[in-house]
Amino acid sequence: MTVHIAVDIGGTRMRAALYTTNRPAPVTVKRINTRKKNIPPRKRLKKLIASIWPADERVSGIGIAVPGPVDPAAGTVKAAPNLPEWTNFPIANYLRQTFSVPVALGNDANLAALGEWQFGAGRGHNFLLYLTISTGIGSGIILDAKPFSGANGYASELGHVLVEPDGPLCSCGVRGHLEAVASGTAISRWVAEQIRSGARTRISWNPASGEPIPGTAIAEAARRGDPLSIAAYHRAGRYLGQAIADFLHTFNPTLVILGGGVSQSYTLFADALHNALQEHIMSSHFLTGLQIVTAQLGDDAGLMGALALARMLTADT
Amino acid sequence: MTVHIAVDIGGTRMRAALYTTNRPAPVTVKRINTRKKNIPPRKRLKKLIASIWPADERVSGIGIAVPGPVDPAAGTVKAAPNLPEWTNFPIANYLRQTFSVPVALGNDANLAALGEWQFGAGRGHNFLLYLTISTGIGSGIILDAKPFSGANGYASELGHVLVEPDGPLCSCGVRGHLEAVASGTAISRWVAEQIRSGARTRISWNPASGEPIPGTAIAEAARRGDPLSIAAYHRAGRYLGQAIADFLHTFNPTLVILGGGVSQSYTLFADALHNALQEHIMSSHFLTGLQIVTAQLGDDAGLMGALALARMLTADT
Repeated sequence: MTVHIAVDIGGTRMRAALYTTNRPAPVTVKRINTRKKNIPPRKRLKKLIASIWPADERVSGIGIAVPGPVDPAAGTVKAAPNLPEWTNFPIANYLRQTFSVPVALGNDANLAALGEWQFGAGRGHNFLLYLTISTGIGSGIILDAKPFSGANGYASELGHVLVEPDGPLCSCGVRGHLEAVASGTAISRWVAEQIRSGARTRISWNPASGEPIPGTAIAEAARRGDPLSIAAYHRAGRYLGQAIADFLHTFNPTLVILGGGVSQSYTLFADALHNALQEHIMSSHFLTGLQIVTAQLGDDAGLMGALALARMLTADT
Repeated sequence: MTVHIAVDIGGTRMRAALYTTNRPAPVTVKRINTRKKNIPPRKRLKKLIASIWPADERVSGIGIAVPGPVDPAAGTVKAAPNLPEWTNFPIANYLRQTFSVPVALGNDANLAALGEWQFGAGRGHNFLLYLTISTGIGSGIILDAKPFSGANGYASELGHVLVEPDGPLCSCGVRGHLEAVASGTAISRWVAEQIRSGARTRISWNPASGEPIPGTAIAEAARRGDPLSIAAYHRAGRYLGQAIADFLHTFNPTLVILGGGVSQSYTLFADALHNALQEHIMSSHFLTGLQIVTAQLGDDAGLMGALALARMLTADT
């Protein structure tokens, strides 16, 4: 039996879990706020890991999911939009000084893909794409049974491919990206625009409130037959299908996994997605044997990916 | 000194070359028509290889570039649009029966990328994209110092990503692909449309001829300052820059190589390409250290890739 610690770091919360190889569920899980008063996030992280450290002190390694691109070889966070103080932060060295065990790190979306591949919906597929559709659209890729992150750790940003040249501005500042038309935020914004333009709906929302429409309200209205809400999911599904056709031309995977909050409403947009995919695919070869499924690990995907990474790291040593 | 034979097969012509490890240029090169009367292409191929076989009979292996997707492990051609009789053709077995040496095969665009990586513009880059822009737009990718062809050998078709949803029909039947707006054929067609709509130009071409405008005529006119021809290259360059931005988000390579006939006019569209790339890139991280260059091997890229593949094959055994 070996023991590993997996950590999933977000801009708001960070979570650590202690796993042993003789049981699938974690022995301990702890979650804390990433920030507290004047304590810097790196100290919060150290405290979190120390709080779940086992009494017998025997830990083989730590795997960490970071919300931004990393340099896995150097063990540094390159940049994290929600943790600006971590630009070029040598997190692996920092933790090794205290805990004296190997530390591996990865980008959170890439590790979510790794988690789904090792423990979830991706088992058995050596070429797969994972899209997490929530506030934004993130992605992770497994190619030839290995996580892929490009030459400098910035790949893959599949939410940031152009699908509508004159479309809305994306969070990244470029117009017409997939994230800008098919994320949860984009669905909510489109419904709000339609209501402001006079569209009828069963959703109860006050345009003067300044609040966005919750995705759950749109999904519930769509399930009850509200035409505007149904149209919103169809629209997102069409863009996803169009983009997935290009991803198949690009990567020729055997599996596409849809995760994130929006994927919980997959039945509301699956037909639109598949129709757009059929329309935009250049050859049926790319669809032969292809599966499109929803993720299985939910919010645990990044944590489970960090665990897989920690185990890969110590298997090598 | 070891000896290898490289073969590049096209729908019209096929070429074979004999290489030794002690000199970079081939010892012998021979080119024949792929078809002749009723002789099937597979027999022409056998004859071509036999015709350059060395007198001492010592060949370590044969590498073959095929114009379509292949299954490298099984040694079969899956499909070749210009060689319909080769659908699911077990070419490696067929040649081994006669020549009794290892046979490796790859898709021609993927092998052109491999050739440029081993012998040409791509040396030293472990993550690179190669685009060949001529009649169509083909592509090959090197990821982590290995040729990439996806789960089933169909990757990557980077000429078939959507760049203009309402754009012209692509050769594959889908609307708005990169190939449909930025290939040599697309440039020529756009210029013809503009002339038919009354645009002025220095190109001498008779719209009633039914003939397409040669790319060389458009390039020459552009170099002499013809505004329509300049605009045609700018337009193609903008679409290429837009698409390359997405390819960088997707693969995060350190090098993009532009090959094919159109790349010989790179100076005519380089600025437009770079401006569009800047406009569409989500973060300057993706441009740090990135180079965009033209190919070095010309028509020999596929043949040189087949040589590299043959050498890789026999290095393993």
